[in-house]
Amino acid sequence: MKINRKHQQTIWLKENNEKIIQVFDQRFFPHQINIFDITNTSEAIYAIKEMIVRGAPLIGVTAAYGMYLACIEAKEKNNPNEYIVEVSKKLNATRPTAVNLSWAIDMMQKAINAESSIQKKIEVALKTANQIKQDDIDICYHIGKHGLALIKAIAKEKNGETVNILTHCNAGWLATIDWGTALSPIYHAQKEGIDVHVWVDETRPRNQGANLTAFELNEQGIKHTLINDNTGGHLMQHGMVDIVLVGSDRTTKNGDVANKIGTYLKALAAFDNNIPFYVGLPSSSIDFSLLDGVKNIPIETRDENEVKYIQGKVDGEIKSILICPETTPALNYGFDVTPAKYVTGLITERGICEASEEGIKGLFPEKF
Amino acid sequence: MKINRKHQQTIWLKENNEKIIQVFDQRFFPHQINIFDITNTSEAIYAIKEMIVRGAPLIGVTAAYGMYLACIEAKEKNNPNEYIVEVSKKLNATRPTAVNLSWAIDMMQKAINAESSIQKKIEVALKTANQIKQDDIDICYHIGKHGLALIKAIAKEKNGETVNILTHCNAGWLATIDWGTALSPIYHAQKEGIDVHVWVDETRPRNQGANLTAFELNEQGIKHTLINDNTGGHLMQHGMVDIVLVGSDRTTKNGDVANKIGTYLKALAAFDNNIPFYVGLPSSSIDFSLLDGVKNIPIETRDENEVKYIQGKVDGEIKSILICPETTPALNYGFDVTPAKYVTGLITERGICEASEEGIKGLFPEKF
Repeated sequence: MKINRKHQQTIWLKENNEKIIQVFDQRFFPHQINIFDITNTSEAIYAIKEMIVRGAPLIGVTAAYGMYLACIEAKEKNNPNEYIVEVSKKLNATRPTAVNLSWAIDMMQKAINAESSIQKKIEVALKTANQIKQDDIDICYHIGKHGLALIKAIAKEKNGETVNILTHCNAGWLATIDWGTALSPIYHAQKEGIDVHVWVDETRPRNQGANLTAFELNEQGIKHTLINDNTGGHLMQHGMVDIVLVGSDRTTKNGDVANKIGTYLKALAAFDNNIPFYVGLPSSSIDFSLLDGVKNIPIETRDENEVKYIQGKVDGEIKSILICPETTPALNYGFDVTPAKYVTGLITERGICEASEEGIKGLFPEKF
Repeated sequence: MKINRKHQQTIWLKENNEKIIQVFDQRFFPHQINIFDITNTSEAIYAIKEMIVRGAPLIGVTAAYGMYLACIEAKEKNNPNEYIVEVSKKLNATRPTAVNLSWAIDMMQKAINAESSIQKKIEVALKTANQIKQDDIDICYHIGKHGLALIKAIAKEKNGETVNILTHCNAGWLATIDWGTALSPIYHAQKEGIDVHVWVDETRPRNQGANLTAFELNEQGIKHTLINDNTGGHLMQHGMVDIVLVGSDRTTKNGDVANKIGTYLKALAAFDNNIPFYVGLPSSSIDFSLLDGVKNIPIETRDENEVKYIQGKVDGEIKSILICPETTPALNYGFDVTPAKYVTGLITERGICEASEEGIKGLFPEKF
């Protein structure tokens, strides 16, 4: 998708230097558009941990390239295989909730293990990382195509009146490589000339809605309005939301959805007001080993200062302001789990299904 | 209650000058503790509109003193009665959602109308405003006494383990004159030596939870933890909340509750997790003329910049930071309505009742 009218992706190999991975430093969007160079595995780990890159699909692809860098570094080690496994463990430990991370690392490890010479390992690692990246683009494209049908149907029902979509956090192209998950159907709707408007939850604590979703919709020329995380329920009570579209960091085999903290509250409000609540996700984020999301999906606890301080632009600089007494303790969970019963459907690269074991099995029988 | 270990109220007559009303400027809590002088009716209107004072009960009392200042000013007018009515209309228009405002103004107008000389009007206005203030203190005290029983019962059930209470916005003493509504039971519990801990929703956009509730609990020495507005649902799913206590800006005859935007979402989560959800309110905030809160309670829309900018402390100064692209439009509803079916009970000055016409009638039969 676009930044400053130029087509961009979120991660790429540096021109003329295949050993450097480049990403946008998403910590300073929308106020600064900086590129961050990942030149070694420590920087790959740092980029994921510090949320220079974020969003389950992009985290997965970044980890894949991190494994490629591990192979390059392994060349200089006494025990290359051991070193690669070591790095894979560190990468795996950067963020606990998104399952694409371990999925991508597993894919890479298998490909790397299949080769014996270190040079071949490097080659296959780059090839596999590139493939994971390309697959993500294709997957997001297809999520968009399938989700488009939902928006089209609403537009038809409303006789062409604006379709109002509420989204939480950022599940746009900035969370993936291109297109996005929850926002991909919206970009496809725009291409088809459907009149859409997006309610953007600011998404405290890190405000990915305000910083990223508002930014990318703006760059794409899609109508949107920023709201506080508290506002969605009121809008739904008053018929101002036609559909909710969100992403997922991990979905259980039975359709429970872990996504950015606060998603569950929006799902409850959608349910209470008979508004369809759909989740856009690549199948790589389905954890086929889990059956009870609330009990079993590990939820990341982050620094309390993300709650106590808010980052933004003041006097032309990016700064953090304190919003409470200095001594106030805070607690910062990154995600929550929406039970499947509140999810109208899952939009995957293979189509839309019910958020249930049966529904998921219908689309991904080979996983059962 | 206390600020800097000294007992304080939120509004008082200036020492040695009964023509000046003093309040804390709540816009800069907790970073600055300033006193604002209300010396005329324009300043009374400004104080309510700009949220120097806020919270339904305190708004009511401030408006009452505003009516007293109107009588003083009326002395110099050709048509004093007309002038007083004019001011009452302006005061009434400052904030649309809280019903205590019009309730207090009506009380004042009746008392003022009962006297014919302007000197007598001034005297009775001061007396009535003082009485409304004293009544609010008594009412909040009794809300606390009644609500205490709920906390006591939970403490007993938990064998003395910490009772975890979630609250939204600020319904503490800073929203009233003393004690508070939703927080009054908590202060009473502290006095009785019950081990309580409060989850404080930051309450975007204006962060009254982070700025005011965290501040007043801190000054009072009550254990608390600041959380984002998105977090309550997750805590409730994991047994970390025993009871929700919030305030109300207007409650309909059948128990629908208008309160700070986002309250509805917390009520849905409490309902979904079988957690009691109680509302502390003075009967002055019950609107006996309304039966459908979602349809009929007017919801204030405020400046979009309250969403786009957040106020806090940075580099030792109070500033506002921008959290989204400068051109992003935002929408800012101040309140939402929680339907009675999601409210476990109302805690009033006369006791606790079901959130229903029958329940309210049981405690306030004279209003039916």
